[in-house]
Amino acid sequence: MNTQAAGTKALVFDVFGTVVDWHGSVAREVRELARAKGLRINAVKFAKAWRAGYRPAMDRVRRGEAPFEKIDVIHRAILEDVLRQFRVTTLAEDEKARLNLVWHRLKPWPDAVRGLKRLKSKHIIATLSNGNTGLLVDMAKHGGLPWDCVFSSDTFKLFKPDPGMYLGAADRLDLKPSEVMMVAAHKPDLRAAAQQGLKTAFVKRPHEHGRNNNPDLASETEFTINAESFLDLADQMGC
Amino acid sequence: MNTQAAGTKALVFDVFGTVVDWHGSVAREVRELARAKGLRINAVKFAKAWRAGYRPAMDRVRRGEAPFEKIDVIHRAILEDVLRQFRVTTLAEDEKARLNLVWHRLKPWPDAVRGLKRLKSKHIIATLSNGNTGLLVDMAKHGGLPWDCVFSSDTFKLFKPDPGMYLGAADRLDLKPSEVMMVAAHKPDLRAAAQQGLKTAFVKRPHEHGRNNNPDLASETEFTINAESFLDLADQMGC
Repeated sequence: MNTQAAGTKALVFDVFGTVVDWHGSVAREVRELARAKGLRINAVKFAKAWRAGYRPAMDRVRRGEAPFEKIDVIHRAILEDVLRQFRVTTLAEDEKARLNLVWHRLKPWPDAVRGLKRLKSKHIIATLSNGNTGLLVDMAKHGGLPWDCVFSSDTFKLFKPDPGMYLGAADRLDLKPSEVMMVAAHKPDLRAAAQQGLKTAFVKRPHEHGRNNNPDLASETEFTINAESFLDLADQMGC
Repeated sequence: MNTQAAGTKALVFDVFGTVVDWHGSVAREVRELARAKGLRINAVKFAKAWRAGYRPAMDRVRRGEAPFEKIDVIHRAILEDVLRQFRVTTLAEDEKARLNLVWHRLKPWPDAVRGLKRLKSKHIIATLSNGNTGLLVDMAKHGGLPWDCVFSSDTFKLFKPDPGMYLGAADRLDLKPSEVMMVAAHKPDLRAAAQQGLKTAFVKRPHEHGRNNNPDLASETEFTINAESFLDLADQMGC
């Protein structure tokens, strides 16, 4: 057991990239759709372009330039842009609607469910995601993710890294920020959580953006825990 | 399968009295505390008095006469009143704080966990309770309640029977009200849900207020389903 983690009562998880493999899941469904429709699309580039639109769209909301919307709505608007960019003009409305819901069907990393079950035996485990509640609940049912509780952008009408997301999760669970550990594969998310007094666990996801890229996987002493997987995290949490 | 229930995608549950036995659980802990402290308290009457303060306190918030508070805070204020009423003056602060958390440790009715697991296999199952999130999460961990999602008064800053509670749950799950079924042992809760377009399941809990009282257990054709237990509900839902 990592002694710096003592006193942790709840772990809250970033989801896209940390718990589930958005890149592989989206690329796979795009590839299948392209094959079925006889389209020539680079599915890996399509997945990356779709995901790349997400952060700027949230930032517009965070700066007050756009109203709060569920991620499903934001994903759909980005999808329309990406389809134009890839010159795909032959998808029917129901095909686009179904493709947009691929984000509800993202597959957990191979260690995720086993790790979460171990962590859940001694702690509260909850999402803390910019996804919307319906999406996160659907994803959990598809993937067998055993959350105690789902916190999302529509819980607080905010997006990470707004401080209200991290403090809101602690408040809803009647915990002090120091009793909550943020788990993420993304250092900025962890740094924003640490600024609000949460503990932090950095989990390395080398293939979040597919293979052949060069993510920052260096451990950092600033984080409470650095872990290779959710199983390693469970080991370090004494679960 | 009850054909009127067709199209139900999520079941949302009243918790106190419907899923868990507040009366038996509170009376048991009060009896144990009284024995340990050498106090003479009628534990059954004490439990009823504590619970009886709950609805008026929520109604004051609903009428705008008091600010929104978590149920934990409301329970504590009522506890102080009830202790005065029962002339109990010897409890220390930590004993009162611990007793107040009995509501986090309420025991599920014997059929609840098995019924919920069956219902979960085909539907989203979530709380829709006036309890607070932290309380409901603690209770689920104590009792093994396998919620997909926890909706509570602090999710919406409202209390049932405010329409925003029922419509809020449907909206968060990206469902139409008619795709959501409210499950409760209390007819007014179900009638308020039905007014917002939700389906309804009345579950009979003859001992919610202990034995030797005369609750209204009559089936009503106005409800989508009338059930003797969560197992009967699962049968009627085809789970």
